[in-house]
Amino acid sequence: MSKNSAAQIDRVFHALGDATRRAIVERVSAGPISVSKLAKPLDITLAAVVQHLQVLERSGLVRTEKIGRVRTCRIEPAGLSAAEKWLNERRTIWQKRFDRLGALLAEPEKN
Amino acid sequence: MSKNSAAQIDRVFHALGDATRRAIVERVSAGPISVSKLAKPLDITLAAVVQHLQVLERSGLVRTEKIGRVRTCRIEPAGLSAAEKWLNERRTIWQKRFDRLGALLAEPEKN
Repeated sequence: MSKNSAAQIDRVFHALGDATRRAIVERVSAGPISVSKLAKPLDITLAAVVQHLQVLERSGLVRTEKIGRVRTCRIEPAGLSAAEKWLNERRTIWQKRFDRLGALLAEPEKN
Repeated sequence: MSKNSAAQIDRVFHALGDATRRAIVERVSAGPISVSKLAKPLDITLAAVVQHLQVLERSGLVRTEKIGRVRTCRIEPAGLSAAEKWLNERRTIWQKRFDRLGALLAEPEKN
């Protein structure tokens, strides 16, 4: 795995390791939304929301765009790909190990 | 979502947000391994490995057990479940949005 790709996975998992940032991803998943609307139900300052958004933008999970005076946030589903790939590979390896264990347990006992 | 479950997802994503900890998960995925064997190819001190293992144990992804003088590490696939569930839910929502967009674009143009 390249260093760039590892750093990218670091950033995605780090971004998702915070409940407020996951709440932001959940809201933004429902459709594009302005930063001020996004901040309203969150019990934190606008400055804190902006900081969380910067972490999410660096991770590639969220994109923001300023048009006039309004900054709008959108989800970037492709941002998740490298981290999802890593997880799926692990899951596949674990599944294979369990299948082998199952096959072993199903073998008739040798005396 | 309960606070406990959110904290559990925090810990899993935080644990996976570090390339060395992911390398440990990869090694341990291949089968149970002692801490000293695990540490050998990693270019960090044994103390650092133990610290990473503590983060992984708290996240529920890895279990360690000391028998005699040897501490053995095992993977705990169930530890990933809550974080995987969260990711799969997001992926499903994004997929639905793209399907709706696809259907919209496939509609004959109205003049």
